[in-house]
Amino acid sequence: MKFTVIERVGRKARILDQRQLPTRTVYHEYDDYRDIIESIKTLEIRGAPAIGIAGAFAMALAAEVAARMSVEQYKSILKNIAGEIKNARPTAVNLAWGVERVVRVIDDFNGDDMAAFRAAIWAEAEGILDEDRALCEAIGRNGAEFLEDGDTVLTHCNAGALATGGIGTALAPVYVACRQGKRVSVFADETRPLLQGARLTSWELSTEGIEVTLICDNMAAVVMRQGRVDKVIVGTDRVARNGDVANKIGTYTVALLAREHGIPFYVALPYSTFDQVLETGDDIPIEERSPSEIVSWGGHRTAPEGIKVYSPAFDITPRELVTAYITDKGVKPGGRS
Amino acid sequence: MKFTVIERVGRKARILDQRQLPTRTVYHEYDDYRDIIESIKTLEIRGAPAIGIAGAFAMALAAEVAARMSVEQYKSILKNIAGEIKNARPTAVNLAWGVERVVRVIDDFNGDDMAAFRAAIWAEAEGILDEDRALCEAIGRNGAEFLEDGDTVLTHCNAGALATGGIGTALAPVYVACRQGKRVSVFADETRPLLQGARLTSWELSTEGIEVTLICDNMAAVVMRQGRVDKVIVGTDRVARNGDVANKIGTYTVALLAREHGIPFYVALPYSTFDQVLETGDDIPIEERSPSEIVSWGGHRTAPEGIKVYSPAFDITPRELVTAYITDKGVKPGGRS
Repeated sequence: MKFTVIERVGRKARILDQRQLPTRTVYHEYDDYRDIIESIKTLEIRGAPAIGIAGAFAMALAAEVAARMSVEQYKSILKNIAGEIKNARPTAVNLAWGVERVVRVIDDFNGDDMAAFRAAIWAEAEGILDEDRALCEAIGRNGAEFLEDGDTVLTHCNAGALATGGIGTALAPVYVACRQGKRVSVFADETRPLLQGARLTSWELSTEGIEVTLICDNMAAVVMRQGRVDKVIVGTDRVARNGDVANKIGTYTVALLAREHGIPFYVALPYSTFDQVLETGDDIPIEERSPSEIVSWGGHRTAPEGIKVYSPAFDITPRELVTAYITDKGVKPGGRS
Repeated sequence: MKFTVIERVGRKARILDQRQLPTRTVYHEYDDYRDIIESIKTLEIRGAPAIGIAGAFAMALAAEVAARMSVEQYKSILKNIAGEIKNARPTAVNLAWGVERVVRVIDDFNGDDMAAFRAAIWAEAEGILDEDRALCEAIGRNGAEFLEDGDTVLTHCNAGALATGGIGTALAPVYVACRQGKRVSVFADETRPLLQGARLTSWELSTEGIEVTLICDNMAAVVMRQGRVDKVIVGTDRVARNGDVANKIGTYTVALLAREHGIPFYVALPYSTFDQVLETGDDIPIEERSPSEIVSWGGHRTAPEGIKVYSPAFDITPRELVTAYITDKGVKPGGRS
């Protein structure tokens, strides 16, 4: 990758400011965990896996500032801070998960050596980043087997390197296939209302030298009908026990269009994204977003004042529309015959 | 209607500036046909029926400025001007049609009475406007029969009063049904890239006191799946002999989603929009739009510089997806069983 979403630089965390993409590539170095909380809240860093890593890094930064305390004193302070970090985006399960992994290291640490204590915390945070990298690679390897030389993949939203510590989930198979010498190009849905496809997916793919064509969400059906799409690959925020997929609004439409046009529809995900509790997609709550995301853009009002808006952030794609789930642990068949 | 798209005011044409909607309601009065050409080119007035009327009005304004010429001298000048007006938007068939109707009046006029000559031209131009009003009413009456009290209609783009001289095509059944005392509400797709649904449809419906909810194009499937859409009605730019429908990009997706969710899909149109020449939708050329419409908004860049963009302006909905065609001359069944 020609960019790094998040990394450790000495006693700091260096984060790519995704709010400024695609116009500017700006990195910030933070040494205060509160800056990371702000970074997560304002979507400077986003994507479920990436904010899980950011949460763990925030814990490591919090541990750095303890200079004159004992390990025991500091443990309780850190555990309060853990709650603060987890609240940055309460709906993202990865954030709590990343923070909790560090809390476990804190709980398990014995002794009084603050330097060793901090080192253990950093090791866990960096370990989460490394694991995520490896996991993206595994998803990429497993998914690349479905991609042939000359294929065009359509994707929705951004489940790429910008959303993870590695090469992404949905885009990982594309990166690995290209590395293997296959020519693979991508159609990126712009993904209203927040335009992650336009701002992020098309930026990261073109930065990495992969051919990408940007379309509006409502154009996907046309390129499919023209026979210009060979496979669809999307990411997911959560998969229910029955295989129903929660993902960015518009995914369900893409899945229906893929079936209609006989195009395989793959969902790429870390195996851990399979929910162990919720039975079906009906149990997954659909977050509704602020109308402001739809009624204006760049400070320019695009709809009448006071207009009623409905803006679900996610939709549910039933398992019957999924050809296969591509995970780090292998490929699981979907419900589409 | 609480607004008028185009009307005659003495020797001038008064036009609602749709470029400034929904933020400002501004009317301009023009006495020079060249201003009308500019108005058509810059989308101050848009919608196929409306620009047909505007073309005829431009001819009437051109005739007004002839003060000291004979009718014969002026006929040839007016016919040159006719060509100039038709070029304002060469793809819109209604524009040429409106202008040609006036040219026929010019050709047929006998005598030397310039006042009578101009009156005949104005009569034709205003006649076209009146006919369009009547035609929209007829579409509305025929379509309203499909709408029941409590229905919610989903529409795409703007085929409303703002696109015609009357109460629109796709929205005419909604206006008539509401007049009949039925409670009918509307979901308006925002319609990327130019946001006619957000800027125009939601403005005109809310102005007329009809309940409208704005959604992004990629949210239509969710409201359909939730059982919140009873009927879909869209307009069309051209219908091929076999019934295939050319309309604003995204219409084909809406038609597929409607069938998938068991929702009737109606196309509302003046009977004259049925093409007498082209056999199927495959024969209808698809205009490709400028990438600039997709990569920025309100002066704010939303995609990387130099990114490849594909932006078809229209798509083709096969007749198999159409429940019925609602016209001024009655209802014609579609190909959806």
